[in-house]
Amino acid sequence: MSDVKRVVLAFSGGLDTSVILKWLQQTYQCEVVTFTADLGQGEELEPARAKAKLMGVPDEHIFIDDLREEFVKDYVFPMMRGNALYEGLYLLGTSIARPLIAKRQIEIARAVGADAVSHGATGKGNDQVRFELGYYGLAPDIRVIAPWREWDLTSRTALIDFAEKHQIPVPKDKRGESPFSTDANLLHTSSEGKVLEDPWEEVPDYVYSRTVNPEDAPDQPEIITIDFERGDGVALNGEGMSPATLLTALNELGRKHGIGRLDLVENRFVGMKSRGMYETPGGAIYHLAHRGIEQITLDRGAAHLKDELAPRYAELIYNGFWFSPEREMLQAAIDHSQEKVTGTVRLKLYKGGVHVIGRKSPYTLYSEKVVTFEDDAGAYDQRDAAGFIKLNALRLRLLGRRDGR
Amino acid sequence: MSDVKRVVLAFSGGLDTSVILKWLQQTYQCEVVTFTADLGQGEELEPARAKAKLMGVPDEHIFIDDLREEFVKDYVFPMMRGNALYEGLYLLGTSIARPLIAKRQIEIARAVGADAVSHGATGKGNDQVRFELGYYGLAPDIRVIAPWREWDLTSRTALIDFAEKHQIPVPKDKRGESPFSTDANLLHTSSEGKVLEDPWEEVPDYVYSRTVNPEDAPDQPEIITIDFERGDGVALNGEGMSPATLLTALNELGRKHGIGRLDLVENRFVGMKSRGMYETPGGAIYHLAHRGIEQITLDRGAAHLKDELAPRYAELIYNGFWFSPEREMLQAAIDHSQEKVTGTVRLKLYKGGVHVIGRKSPYTLYSEKVVTFEDDAGAYDQRDAAGFIKLNALRLRLLGRRDGR
Amino acid sequence: MSDVKRVVLAFSGGLDTSVILKWLQQTYQCEVVTFTADLGQGEELEPARAKAKLMGVPDEHIFIDDLREEFVKDYVFPMMRGNALYEGLYLLGTSIARPLIAKRQIEIARAVGADAVSHGATGKGNDQVRFELGYYGLAPDIRVIAPWREWDLTSRTALIDFAEKHQIPVPKDKRGESPFSTDANLLHTSSEGKVLEDPWEEVPDYVYSRTVNPEDAPDQPEIITIDFERGDGVALNGEGMSPATLLTALNELGRKHGIGRLDLVENRFVGMKSRGMYETPGGAIYHLAHRGIEQITLDRGAAHLKDELAPRYAELIYNGFWFSPEREMLQAAIDHSQEKVTGTVRLKLYKGGVHVIGRKSPYTLYSEKVVTFEDDAGAYDQRDAAGFIKLNALRLRLLGRRDGR
Amino acid sequence: MSDVKRVVLAFSGGLDTSVILKWLQQTYQCEVVTFTADLGQGEELEPARAKAKLMGVPDEHIFIDDLREEFVKDYVFPMMRGNALYEGLYLLGTSIARPLIAKRQIEIARAVGADAVSHGATGKGNDQVRFELGYYGLAPDIRVIAPWREWDLTSRTALIDFAEKHQIPVPKDKRGESPFSTDANLLHTSSEGKVLEDPWEEVPDYVYSRTVNPEDAPDQPEIITIDFERGDGVALNGEGMSPATLLTALNELGRKHGIGRLDLVENRFVGMKSRGMYETPGGAIYHLAHRGIEQITLDRGAAHLKDELAPRYAELIYNGFWFSPEREMLQAAIDHSQEKVTGTVRLKLYKGGVHVIGRKSPYTLYSEKVVTFEDDAGAYDQRDAAGFIKLNALRLRLLGRRDGR
Repeated sequence: MSDVKRVVLAFSGGLDTSVILKWLQQTYQCEVVTFTADLGQGEELEPARAKAKLMGVPDEHIFIDDLREEFVKDYVFPMMRGNALYEGLYLLGTSIARPLIAKRQIEIARAVGADAVSHGATGKGNDQVRFELGYYGLAPDIRVIAPWREWDLTSRTALIDFAEKHQIPVPKDKRGESPFSTDANLLHTSSEGKVLEDPWEEVPDYVYSRTVNPEDAPDQPEIITIDFERGDGVALNGEGMSPATLLTALNELGRKHGIGRLDLVENRFVGMKSRGMYETPGGAIYHLAHRGIEQITLDRGAAHLKDELAPRYAELIYNGFWFSPEREMLQAAIDHSQEKVTGTVRLKLYKGGVHVIGRKSPYTLYSEKVVTFEDDAGAYDQRDAAGFIKLNALRLRLLGRRDGR
Repeated sequence: MSDVKRVVLAFSGGLDTSVILKWLQQTYQCEVVTFTADLGQGEELEPARAKAKLMGVPDEHIFIDDLREEFVKDYVFPMMRGNALYEGLYLLGTSIARPLIAKRQIEIARAVGADAVSHGATGKGNDQVRFELGYYGLAPDIRVIAPWREWDLTSRTALIDFAEKHQIPVPKDKRGESPFSTDANLLHTSSEGKVLEDPWEEVPDYVYSRTVNPEDAPDQPEIITIDFERGDGVALNGEGMSPATLLTALNELGRKHGIGRLDLVENRFVGMKSRGMYETPGGAIYHLAHRGIEQITLDRGAAHLKDELAPRYAELIYNGFWFSPEREMLQAAIDHSQEKVTGTVRLKLYKGGVHVIGRKSPYTLYSEKVVTFEDDAGAYDQRDAAGFIKLNALRLRLLGRRDGR
Repeated sequence: MSDVKRVVLAFSGGLDTSVILKWLQQTYQCEVVTFTADLGQGEELEPARAKAKLMGVPDEHIFIDDLREEFVKDYVFPMMRGNALYEGLYLLGTSIARPLIAKRQIEIARAVGADAVSHGATGKGNDQVRFELGYYGLAPDIRVIAPWREWDLTSRTALIDFAEKHQIPVPKDKRGESPFSTDANLLHTSSEGKVLEDPWEEVPDYVYSRTVNPEDAPDQPEIITIDFERGDGVALNGEGMSPATLLTALNELGRKHGIGRLDLVENRFVGMKSRGMYETPGGAIYHLAHRGIEQITLDRGAAHLKDELAPRYAELIYNGFWFSPEREMLQAAIDHSQEKVTGTVRLKLYKGGVHVIGRKSPYTLYSEKVVTFEDDAGAYDQRDAAGFIKLNALRLRLLGRRDGR
Repeated sequence: MSDVKRVVLAFSGGLDTSVILKWLQQTYQCEVVTFTADLGQGEELEPARAKAKLMGVPDEHIFIDDLREEFVKDYVFPMMRGNALYEGLYLLGTSIARPLIAKRQIEIARAVGADAVSHGATGKGNDQVRFELGYYGLAPDIRVIAPWREWDLTSRTALIDFAEKHQIPVPKDKRGESPFSTDANLLHTSSEGKVLEDPWEEVPDYVYSRTVNPEDAPDQPEIITIDFERGDGVALNGEGMSPATLLTALNELGRKHGIGRLDLVENRFVGMKSRGMYETPGGAIYHLAHRGIEQITLDRGAAHLKDELAPRYAELIYNGFWFSPEREMLQAAIDHSQEKVTGTVRLKLYKGGVHVIGRKSPYTLYSEKVVTFEDDAGAYDQRDAAGFIKLNALRLRLLGRRDGR
């Protein structure tokens, strides 16, 4: 296996990817380049540097990048323009982070002349697919190493033994069976496995880390406004903010009011059902706000086409096809619709709930003059409705005459 | 206009349809047959009988039917099987009642030998379309009279003048401008117009009539279970119930916990945007519960196809095409998927929120054995994922080689 | 009706629009501005000028425009990029011309300060919808006059009487009942009505005017090539051509070989079925050629998404929604896919048939190396297929275990 | 590998599956049960029996079934109801045969108590997927052996050596490199590989075996009729026929007139493009005939929904998901639409072309009375079109006012 010379590893600094780092060095006798991304997961990144150094990675091969603004601007916001919900409910917090990591990893591979990339996702999950479809799409001839599918460290004990044997520090809480596994970034935190594996049992409250329990949230609702320009959020309560800053601020509001918790049994791309817990505090607020501003600025034709495309679009992102022609085609359609999605949405946050309570826009298509029950001064001729109905009914009448229900 | 001999009027007994009754008698010199349906709107129906009598409708031409069970069983439940949401949010409470009224009206027209039907929906709304597409689909040659599109009673003052002139009682609260108009049935109450016409202004609390304000809801969450069989709800907290009984009980729970309020700007079929307020207390709970049981009993292929068809299906119902081949085709597809949608969902109701917290089924497709992070005893071979990814990536790699991103 | 001052009429110079011209002048006491477009219908346009003059239209209000290149470049080619077929078969030759006429008519209305536009389409067809949706979308407050829906000239005799009374020349062949009505432009000729009204009867050969009967076509097939760049045709048999020139040349080939005849019963937007005859000689060749070049240059994801969007896209064009957000969104998606749709297609034309027999491209995604049954030198690892199938089968296996077919 | 006891092999009796038979016996030390299906491929099946015997398969383990009627009735016809075309052109002749073979193979496995099944499809193609998804869906725990993905007989020479070594007769024409590989059944014959591998080169005429070259077809067109009942063909030229008899007769007609040839570059499910040649003589006629009868018997709503679902439906069949909930859901929708698809279609066959020239039905929805340009006696009120257009235009006008194009 000495055919790999230099591999770029998506490295969190945690136990698993530390073991992988060492395992790669041993197994492939290759140089390992570490890449640690700040996607807003809320962890210190410098310890990752120290660990990498400890395992012999030279300074120039340790990459630590703050990708938060790029993440929100080029991945989260475009996705939110599409109102994407996987299986009707999930805001795709993990799915949308993977393509960016893959892309940066490939950039680094090119910069350092690596011939392989590696990640710490298991062989049962979606993330391996998302990472690898990203790698292959961007660098078709890259070598991909997925240790979890290759090695024989199939139990936690084996992993810890390996760590100890190689002087890799094992945090105390990893020694026992951790009760679940988590992923986090600026958009969300997810947990799955262990105590969550019985979908009949309620998710224990200690699994949630990003939001207060709605029952402990403030007894007073909070009213906020979000401003949108061309489909993207630009301000909170009138204060202009960068994408990542806005999402961070919404996360804080969501946390406080217990917003964005989701207990879901979902269908993985690899063919099994899994049960997950998601917290998307800011994202849940943003998603509904975006729908709110679209309500008055999107024409029905555009809105309904978007609704019809959304499940497919969400499925593509979930399955890892961010860098695919079909996702980009759908994005082109979606983005075309957002030109005038500009205005302000007012929302009420309360005890786990988000409620759009007002929206206004310089580009509103809502016409009080047309819709009013009062005299509309000729804006709408009710007699037009007769012809409209008659012709919509014509085919049904021909059918009725034939089939005589 | 003496060509109409006998007309069946959808008659609520309220001011508007009372005026219509009289206006039909006068204008068409015809017999009016009244039809009043109990769809669970929560109003006494006997006053409608008295009013009809007062205006000279003979007993045998006064029809008052309790359609609640038929409404829930044959309209609400089938629709809920499809997880229908119009424009992502609206549970279609008004839309789904209209076809049943139209159908019953046509049945009565046939029974009494009427040559026309009439309704009290205005010329700006969706309901005229829903009623009339129903009429025409079921009785292609029926004559339809839509007084709001024909008469000159275009202001409320004119309407009240007409009423007084003809000894039609005018309730006190109708004398001033009523602040909004409402529709109600067992599934929901909606309001629109007047104080709701500025979509930037919050819906005043007094507009809501079916739910307490979430802020006034109990401080303790309530846990309930709903049992499903073949896609339809059959029991609450283990107690078997008929469709209408179940929905009524869920409404009571929803009312108590402030569930199912929606403030929406929507796109009407007739081409304008309107702002409405909806309360669907029981329906909101039921909708999420149904999604919950589907999560473990539907295969991914079925689930995703349903998600892709749902926006179109909801649009058809919203636009009034319940009795159309395409709605029936979609229903056939949806119903085919529900065979094993059987089991129990546990939900938490709290301060306006509904949260699925558990689901179980004798037909669950969720396999702890397959999904577990622990040793799965060979239920899943992680190495399969390598080939799966490789072949999914193949086209992207060929593309990447060509386009060299 | 003196509220109309100046109206721009889509004027062919034929009997019907001549009568309309006069009728507008009389009925509305207004100035009529005539607009005659050369869309390649193959008729002299100068006679239209003479007729307009004769009826008192001043020179500066007679507009005769050659729109052939704009028609093909901005309407036909974009539509062909989408492989649009209405109801699986119809190449939309009439539908695609209407938006351009409407657009130019509105431009002229603005240029001459007209307050109204008018057209000669009847009240039963699709064209009235296509014209008027175009007018209203581009000039929301324009007044639209559709004489066929307004006047009392409901029989051909009445029309001819009116013409004679007003010294409008009546061609001899219009005196008797013409056996069918036609529309023509560079893309196609259509006929409907009269002798075509029984869908069981074969379309008589004399109805066809743009193609020879396949039975009379040459006994030798003809091989041609079409070059594409970014999804659009640019050359025939290696000779570069402008869009309209290319389509004209393909029409000539199609005519000679009897290509592009279609006998169709279709569903009109206004709710009825009609039977039409279409000849689209060049378009039929071009459509298949475009599919041919896409076969090797489009990725599967893009190709299948296009196929799924195509029926909707075609329906929008057929129904007259060219100038709508949803058509533009679909166009954005389609156009995004065409970047590398460049190359050459070889076709065989023979006795009414078009057969793609070869295609090549500098951007081909077809890889002989990968697909070969022979030794592929590692381009594809057959063992990957095992994992691919296993994971695609996983959900079906779980289902099979549950349902035990 | 002695864990396999008895395996049911899809056995054609040709060289490849004969080698597989022997290889299975040797490699797995197991009993091989052979299954040979008559799907109308036009080959003698008794030689397969003799060969199986020769290799030691006992009589009771040799299964030879005539599945032609089941194939057409339960697979081809249902698919044709959906107007399925893969990538716009391919009639899915190979794809639709695989599920039936898989189903019968599993039935036999159950009957003889086999623990495994095997097939002769290679690791690069779609057929392996189609077979195995069928196996796994119907018998989730069956063992699947795909020799082409396992063995080391990776060249034709190795295969022939193996055959000779084991006294398996090698036909002369298999000794050299065969110029392409084929598949055949009652619906079609396909060829791919070798001389077809350059998609720029025309398919040589000798590759076609089921149709005459259109250039050699009769100079006189032939007119036929096909009768349909509830969406399925039941008679040719007025003579009632069983499904397989009808398709056989249409094949004969198609062969004679050179109908149903297709040269296609398609996208395989396994991710590569391949170039194939298809001959579907009877199927091409039937497909267009079915569209023809639908034109007058299907309502627009049903027809357009079918058109929108068709690409997805075809993709599912192509990819091997016949036995999947989503294909069955789509089938339920499609079948629901076919209730009144009854009547007669007249077609002209000429030199490779199929042209619908007439259709009639007791359930026709085509109304000459409504569509006529002549006086329609009130069947349609042209003024209704004004209102119809006005309300369809309303949203576009609001948009136009906002965006001011």
